[in-house]
Amino acid sequence: MTTLSMHSASVPIFTRMLGNAGTWLDKAQAHAEAKKFDPSVYLTTRLAPDMLPFTTQIQIACDMAKFAVVRLSGVDGPTFDDTEKTLDELRERMRATAAFVQSVPAAKIDGTEDKDITIPRRAGPLTLKGEAYLKHFVLPNFYFHMTTTYALLRHNGVELGKMDFLGALQA
Amino acid sequence: MTTLSMHSASVPIFTRMLGNAGTWLDKAQAHAEAKKFDPSVYLTTRLAPDMLPFTTQIQIACDMAKFAVVRLSGVDGPTFDDTEKTLDELRERMRATAAFVQSVPAAKIDGTEDKDITIPRRAGPLTLKGEAYLKHFVLPNFYFHMTTTYALLRHNGVELGKMDFLGALQA
Repeated sequence: MTTLSMHSASVPIFTRMLGNAGTWLDKAQAHAEAKKFDPSVYLTTRLAPDMLPFTTQIQIACDMAKFAVVRLSGVDGPTFDDTEKTLDELRERMRATAAFVQSVPAAKIDGTEDKDITIPRRAGPLTLKGEAYLKHFVLPNFYFHMTTTYALLRHNGVELGKMDFLGALQA
Repeated sequence: MTTLSMHSASVPIFTRMLGNAGTWLDKAQAHAEAKKFDPSVYLTTRLAPDMLPFTTQIQIACDMAKFAVVRLSGVDGPTFDDTEKTLDELRERMRATAAFVQSVPAAKIDGTEDKDITIPRRAGPLTLKGEAYLKHFVLPNFYFHMTTTYALLRHNGVELGKMDFLGALQA
């Protein structure tokens, strides 16, 4: 009998989606090569002029996962300088983020439902309980930025389907 | 001491996001009125020619939430005919979906981590355990279609920000 927990409801979701997104970047690179354009063109694309560009979508998705684990577990995470300029560097950012979140023992994340988590924000810091932080801040933000990354590639002609978004599902 | 559960990790996420999306439709309607175009124009917009249109994004998001509760709890849900033709009808679809998922007692959803859930798919039915179904099928699909709904409105000039996506966060 398995039971949902703060670890099982966070880290496996992050690692799975970040892995899926690696496949999207592979397909984006192949598309650019087939169409003979520089793959770095993707990095500055936006869905609206006042939305954040592709690179930033990936950086924020990674930071949502990293900081969720850092704040819930109390374990320090890696520092990233947000200087990625190529698809390869973005792929490496996702890989390093997935490796970090997987490296933290589940026991340090489980049981943090009631832990006070303080988020720095432009409007001033906000403190939420661990469970609300995960469910209503981390997960919607993480999926928002992953989905927007996917949408930007689809909008720019990369042939992706829902199964690329979800990844392989096996019984 | 609160503990994450199959109910607490699903229904509150659905009701919150569906409520937030109601606000997006309100702002979309106000934008259409200010710019003097028929708000039903939004309903057929797509981010790519081979992506599903706005209306379908909302219908699928609603169905992901509804079927998650139906399949996990074993309680029958409402039937929708996918005939929405206006923002008001889409708003009502989201309201009715939220009302249904909230109506099912938490006890019928909690403890379903190991329950076999069978999903009908074009490629043939797939059976997953309840926890994997929620984490790797329902949540990514639900957020995918909610984020794409939001992205379509942003792409079409509606003034929304991340706080409209997340909704109010309070300690």
